[in-house]
Amino acid sequence: MATGRTKTQVVIVGAGLSGLSAAKVLHEHGVESIVLEARDRVGGRTHTIKGPGFGYVDVGGAYIGPTQNHMLKLVKELGIQMYKVNTEGKSAVCRKGKKFTVDSEQVAVTNPVCLLDLQHLFRTMDMMGAEIPVEAPWKAPHAKEWDRLTMKDVFDKLIWTGSVRRFADMFVHVNVTSEPHEISALWFLWYIRQCGGVKRIFSVANGGQERKLVGGTQQVSLRLAELLGNRVTLNSSVSKVTQTETGISIDTLSGDSYQAEYSIVAIPPPLQLRVSFSPSLPPVRNQMIQRMPMGSVIKTMMYYEKAYWAEKGMSGMGVIEDDDCPVEFTLDDTKPDGSYPAIIGFVPANKARRYSNYSEDERRDLICQGYAKTFGLKELLHPTCYVEKNWLEEPYSGGCYTTALPPGVLTQFGRIVREPFGRVFFAGTETATHWSGYMEGAVQAGERAAREILHAMGKIEADQVWQDAPQSEEVPALPFVDSFVETYSPSISGLLSTIGLTAVVGLAVGASFILYNK
Amino acid sequence: MATGRTKTQVVIVGAGLSGLSAAKVLHEHGVESIVLEARDRVGGRTHTIKGPGFGYVDVGGAYIGPTQNHMLKLVKELGIQMYKVNTEGKSAVCRKGKKFTVDSEQVAVTNPVCLLDLQHLFRTMDMMGAEIPVEAPWKAPHAKEWDRLTMKDVFDKLIWTGSVRRFADMFVHVNVTSEPHEISALWFLWYIRQCGGVKRIFSVANGGQERKLVGGTQQVSLRLAELLGNRVTLNSSVSKVTQTETGISIDTLSGDSYQAEYSIVAIPPPLQLRVSFSPSLPPVRNQMIQRMPMGSVIKTMMYYEKAYWAEKGMSGMGVIEDDDCPVEFTLDDTKPDGSYPAIIGFVPANKARRYSNYSEDERRDLICQGYAKTFGLKELLHPTCYVEKNWLEEPYSGGCYTTALPPGVLTQFGRIVREPFGRVFFAGTETATHWSGYMEGAVQAGERAAREILHAMGKIEADQVWQDAPQSEEVPALPFVDSFVETYSPSISGLLSTIGLTAVVGLAVGASFILYNK
Repeated sequence: MATGRTKTQVVIVGAGLSGLSAAKVLHEHGVESIVLEARDRVGGRTHTIKGPGFGYVDVGGAYIGPTQNHMLKLVKELGIQMYKVNTEGKSAVCRKGKKFTVDSEQVAVTNPVCLLDLQHLFRTMDMMGAEIPVEAPWKAPHAKEWDRLTMKDVFDKLIWTGSVRRFADMFVHVNVTSEPHEISALWFLWYIRQCGGVKRIFSVANGGQERKLVGGTQQVSLRLAELLGNRVTLNSSVSKVTQTETGISIDTLSGDSYQAEYSIVAIPPPLQLRVSFSPSLPPVRNQMIQRMPMGSVIKTMMYYEKAYWAEKGMSGMGVIEDDDCPVEFTLDDTKPDGSYPAIIGFVPANKARRYSNYSEDERRDLICQGYAKTFGLKELLHPTCYVEKNWLEEPYSGGCYTTALPPGVLTQFGRIVREPFGRVFFAGTETATHWSGYMEGAVQAGERAAREILHAMGKIEADQVWQDAPQSEEVPALPFVDSFVETYSPSISGLLSTIGLTAVVGLAVGASFILYNK
Repeated sequence: MATGRTKTQVVIVGAGLSGLSAAKVLHEHGVESIVLEARDRVGGRTHTIKGPGFGYVDVGGAYIGPTQNHMLKLVKELGIQMYKVNTEGKSAVCRKGKKFTVDSEQVAVTNPVCLLDLQHLFRTMDMMGAEIPVEAPWKAPHAKEWDRLTMKDVFDKLIWTGSVRRFADMFVHVNVTSEPHEISALWFLWYIRQCGGVKRIFSVANGGQERKLVGGTQQVSLRLAELLGNRVTLNSSVSKVTQTETGISIDTLSGDSYQAEYSIVAIPPPLQLRVSFSPSLPPVRNQMIQRMPMGSVIKTMMYYEKAYWAEKGMSGMGVIEDDDCPVEFTLDDTKPDGSYPAIIGFVPANKARRYSNYSEDERRDLICQGYAKTFGLKELLHPTCYVEKNWLEEPYSGGCYTTALPPGVLTQFGRIVREPFGRVFFAGTETATHWSGYMEGAVQAGERAAREILHAMGKIEADQVWQDAPQSEEVPALPFVDSFVETYSPSISGLLSTIGLTAVVGLAVGASFILYNK
């Protein structure tokens, strides 16, 4: 058991993207830091694995797109190439045991009544989001009211048709790996807003899933760690943080000890419970970290001899509404040179919890059956390779992609999520104000926390702490222009009243029930 | 740093009531155990402090009553005396700036329309509860549906009047130290059910608050620790639990190491995140412990020269609906011999979070003002002593009284709360099936976990693991007999339809809105 007392200026807890981004900024300003990582690798929730059946693959955070300018800048600086995720061809949908296709990236809703319903839902979510300040969602005019509702409550009020309800549930599952009834409406609407709205967060082209990195996303952390040289120490799980007026000391489970001026904690909020703080955390923070659970997702990659779906004019994007299939949403995951044809499938929220109790082989078989049904291709029953990662089991992530706030937490506890505690500052994508939950948010948060320390050291001014990254030239953000129909189409209740059915509004519950079965 | 490797048969993590009860059962069966406690004291959430201005006082768990037979048996065995909490006199209510009194223990609702509303609410909650199996609430016929609702959703549907809504909110605050919008309806209805229903949980006479212990509740743990001799080790925060097929080893933050055959973890679920398990926890358990936050309460005791309230025919019980007063609910806390006249006041849920940001002096002054207003006694502005305990700040409790489950958790994660993990068994009041959240539940759970190990050792049969305690002779449980009016009075909607207003049911929302302002 080592008993050395290493001295440095800043100890950073966690060598994920956020902690390493913080170390980079400190390094650039001549401030010494040491990054302590509990795992035997850097990268946190970005993890790229290699193998004969698939070359390499990101089993964690993978996508990058326009407006994610901190990440785009970093990727460019490190000389990593990007490629676009395939969107050519039709998307496949499986609903009530039947399969059909829709145009690329068109939402999986075709009935015109349902389309009105969906457009009204998305418009309303973006309008509600527009009221919510990204840096202080608890200050939204309706913050208190919306934080007392779950997204299920909101969907119950807004949605008339069963197809749209199922699509809305899937939209929540895939974006935040939680169930609509588990999460605060205020938190979810804030989350969508801080990613740029419904279309930006959910689109492939021009959205959050536009690109991937050639060679995988963990490279970013690996190269940052290289730049930092021997400042990153693996297998070092931090157990104690002790502060005095003049400094801070950090102990690890393996018995190492560090002394510094400041610390940055760059691990997910619930994992901060692992650390014994002395003095103890303030009361509200002590309870906040019990109220920010990490989402639930199993990421799966199925490899095939050929991209059979492409041969039939399909993109590989799929929406699977089938209780017997673990996967709910798919994208093409073939390498940019056409090698290793693959479908990536997300097993989110309740499905992740349920299918955690199955064996890997059982999951693979059920997924293949779902793919064969959805894409109408028997060939998909026979993969050449299957890779999966169950993030629920990771003690040093707690889950993926990010935290999901139950009702009441954001207004009561949210405002202290990045409030420093003495000499301890907080990073991690959960503390970001733009693309929080994504790699972009991790970088934004890490750089901000580093600059908070630079400011505390008197090296920069207060107004230099928060810095936007310049818009990427290579990956420009195109505006989403809503069509006339999207902007002005009535809601279903509006339509009913327009055509003279005002009197039946009292029967809305009945009508909604009928439509729900559509 | 000690490096000894102490050997024993069972290591128990946590010297609260649950861990110590487990050790007692093992001891009685000739099984050696060591209890490791992170704090410098035993008792966990039961903590009795002493001082000149108040003699002694329980700043944590304090009450005991009929049907809590495990605790009643233990208290008798240890020779500790009980006394009844005072209920003689009227209860005081402060509502909308006005004060009034009601008969002892009568609910703070007087308007006959509101009474119908309240009786319907309580009757419905108990009827819903009757559907829920205490040992497996996830098997209730409506489990899935009710777990997707918060108690706010249920109150929105059931309650017509503003007075009853405020009372219902207070009922939730005081019983589970959380907000109605934060908690699963299934979980809350289960919680009430497993305490014996609405009347049993909330009553003083014949209910959960009937009695206190002369000398305080921490005595129970102190005497158990005495019985166990040097088997309890303080200042030992467990950091690692390592299992093999043949045994288990337990390491503490201070560097001590223990080897045993089995272990019982008797600490609150979120604090289990503090422990590094090797092998790692199963995926669903790893996420469950992020989803069981501890409730929020500040317990306050205000001491006076005389029991001024008693002189005016009041019991000291009070319901305070006043945003400016931290306390929502009070009881007399005078010692049984009449010494140290006192009012105990609970600051629950959102109020606990809000008033955590005030100084102790500010809290005391605001509470005194609230008491003076509610009881109509200026003398209450001038206490002789003030004692408070903010449980939000406790790193080794996380909060009080117990965990409160957000929507979706009980059906998805609840079934594994006491599922053993290899050689590790789980105790703690959160794992109980009767009076979970109370001292009674802690003892039930501790004894059951100990017997699970006795069974694993082949010392007892499987059907001996769960054992009820015999009904206490000293504290018999009287049945609650509902009056004819309580059983057969109509709900407000029933009343409206009976008197020929069926047609306005469509306007129910409007009517409810009007009544809400009553």
